[in-house]
Amino acid sequence: MIKTQTDIKDMARGAVFLGAGGGGDPYVGELFLQNQLAQGRTPNIVPARELDDDDFVISIAGIGAPTVLVEYLVSETHLVKLLEQAETFYGRKVNALISAEIGGANSMFPLALGAITGLPVIDGDGMGRAFPHLEMTTFSVYGARATPTIFSDELGNVITMDLLSDRLAEEAIRPVVSALGAMAFSGIYPMKGRHVKDYAVHNTISQTLEIGRAIRNGREESDDVFARLINCLNCPEENRSARILFDGKIVDVTHETRDGWHWGSAVLKPIDNSSDELIIDIQNEYIVARLNGETVTIVPDLICILDRETGEPMTAEMLRYGLRVKVIGYSAAPIMRRQECLEVWGPKCFGIDEVFKPVETLG
Amino acid sequence: MIKTQTDIKDMARGAVFLGAGGGGDPYVGELFLQNQLAQGRTPNIVPARELDDDDFVISIAGIGAPTVLVEYLVSETHLVKLLEQAETFYGRKVNALISAEIGGANSMFPLALGAITGLPVIDGDGMGRAFPHLEMTTFSVYGARATPTIFSDELGNVITMDLLSDRLAEEAIRPVVSALGAMAFSGIYPMKGRHVKDYAVHNTISQTLEIGRAIRNGREESDDVFARLINCLNCPEENRSARILFDGKIVDVTHETRDGWHWGSAVLKPIDNSSDELIIDIQNEYIVARLNGETVTIVPDLICILDRETGEPMTAEMLRYGLRVKVIGYSAAPIMRRQECLEVWGPKCFGIDEVFKPVETLG
Repeated sequence: MIKTQTDIKDMARGAVFLGAGGGGDPYVGELFLQNQLAQGRTPNIVPARELDDDDFVISIAGIGAPTVLVEYLVSETHLVKLLEQAETFYGRKVNALISAEIGGANSMFPLALGAITGLPVIDGDGMGRAFPHLEMTTFSVYGARATPTIFSDELGNVITMDLLSDRLAEEAIRPVVSALGAMAFSGIYPMKGRHVKDYAVHNTISQTLEIGRAIRNGREESDDVFARLINCLNCPEENRSARILFDGKIVDVTHETRDGWHWGSAVLKPIDNSSDELIIDIQNEYIVARLNGETVTIVPDLICILDRETGEPMTAEMLRYGLRVKVIGYSAAPIMRRQECLEVWGPKCFGIDEVFKPVETLG
Repeated sequence: MIKTQTDIKDMARGAVFLGAGGGGDPYVGELFLQNQLAQGRTPNIVPARELDDDDFVISIAGIGAPTVLVEYLVSETHLVKLLEQAETFYGRKVNALISAEIGGANSMFPLALGAITGLPVIDGDGMGRAFPHLEMTTFSVYGARATPTIFSDELGNVITMDLLSDRLAEEAIRPVVSALGAMAFSGIYPMKGRHVKDYAVHNTISQTLEIGRAIRNGREESDDVFARLINCLNCPEENRSARILFDGKIVDVTHETRDGWHWGSAVLKPIDNSSDELIIDIQNEYIVARLNGETVTIVPDLICILDRETGEPMTAEMLRYGLRVKVIGYSAAPIMRRQECLEVWGPKCFGIDEVFKPVETLG
């Protein structure tokens, strides 16, 4: 599925799109994967249905401040060593890898380790987008736990945690990685094949590729990249729906780092300065978009901001005054919209006093 | 050595004395040990020289905010489970236990686990007093490491760390225990018997008992508890020296919690309000005592504040305006005063721009 340098670039572009502003720029992982490809190693991406029920699957994730995550050069020996340590820690061989978070940088690391080792990488993840907390996965909602987890940094520091809740894992892991001072990689979310088959958000690696390709093809072959992209995203048989929420320019953007989250908002106006106004709230990801005060897309549905000419998706860090952009509202995967899931990542979990409404019913 | 409830009280009193203001009140550990004794279980305390070179020795320590440490009821099942988990983690049977810090609460937990399991407890520790950081031990100065360590809380959360430096361990462990929200117990400082024989501060359990007894006997049998205590502390053949630095009352005391440390100072005046003034700086422990501006005792030598009538030693938390006290300056163990040790806990490590001078040469 990923066989050329162009595939990797497409996939990374799609991963930024699904990051909905968060998840970090996958550039470093992209470089790493390009390097593997240059050595003739390609990741073996397989659908979850090919897993045996008793297969042992883990996620490989980078943990650290996004600023570090983006600049940290991943070492092949570190990832391979982490896998060895994980197998010792869990007491069994790992049969396949999966991403916990397809949006942004963490889409890349299972593919990187899969390319090195030949371990299959499952075409799916735990959210179909990016979220700020590690307990915000379908894996966790349906009974798997992020821990026991093992994580290590490049210097050789190794830490394991077996904690009673994933919320606690989130609170315990961050400060330790901060104390380590750099970036750590984790083996996390140990799961049975059956659990992955039942509860992963499926085909999300394929989706990143398709999205990235649609943008590239649209750019190269047509004069409206967005028509091509919206066409790719809309898929009634999978209950997927997308539309352009706004076409304009950023007239104000605020950023603040508080409580370990990136808070902010972006205000957009039409290019012709007519009176419409789109305001997007940011909590690591784009959480809610309101057009003239009316909600048009809200978490867990995805809000994506893209360059108006090239269709290149933008993380929240990239936003700045004067950028000309289009904003897309895109439905989350159906599993992500179930009631038990909305308890963990619905609007109220982000302090927004609104009930979730699907993007296709808004605006 | 510890066979009666009176022995335990004596030992706890001596542990507060050696805490030099820090280390936390050992009251809860004391209760636990009393309960063991009531069940006919006494700890088997042995000198380090009885260890085989290849014996495997670990420390058992409580980690948490002093306020929690003091109130947390230790459970027998938790400590026993921790030992089992530690043996699995380290991959070998533990032959003996040792305290990393004899001053204050952490003097008690190896004795508690020793009483339950019958494992020998070494008559010694890693500092002969209390210090605020876990890398401040003779074990660490001479090449042992605090990690690999395993720690757990009563709820069943288990964490392991194998870190490159003990300083990093200090920085990584605290925030995790804080995230756990309560108190954790650790198996820490895994060591060979040879290392313990060569580098422990020896006979410090015996010392706590002797100090506690001297205070009790002085109180019961003489009208000057301090004469008895000073006589017990002075021991020329072991290069131990103690004297009363001041006799008076506390006229001012400040407390501040900053950077995870308890900072403050205490100002003392003579009872008759003559012009002498003793000022004691606090950084968790009493760090330096200055009489009319001249240093009379400085870290790592011990400064101990005791009730003027009963001779009961006081932790820094107990200090308050109006208390009538005597202050003792007491030499640290000779190993603690070596140059390589002063690099880790000499005055400069506490931000004091002075060279260490032994208490017997000052004032």
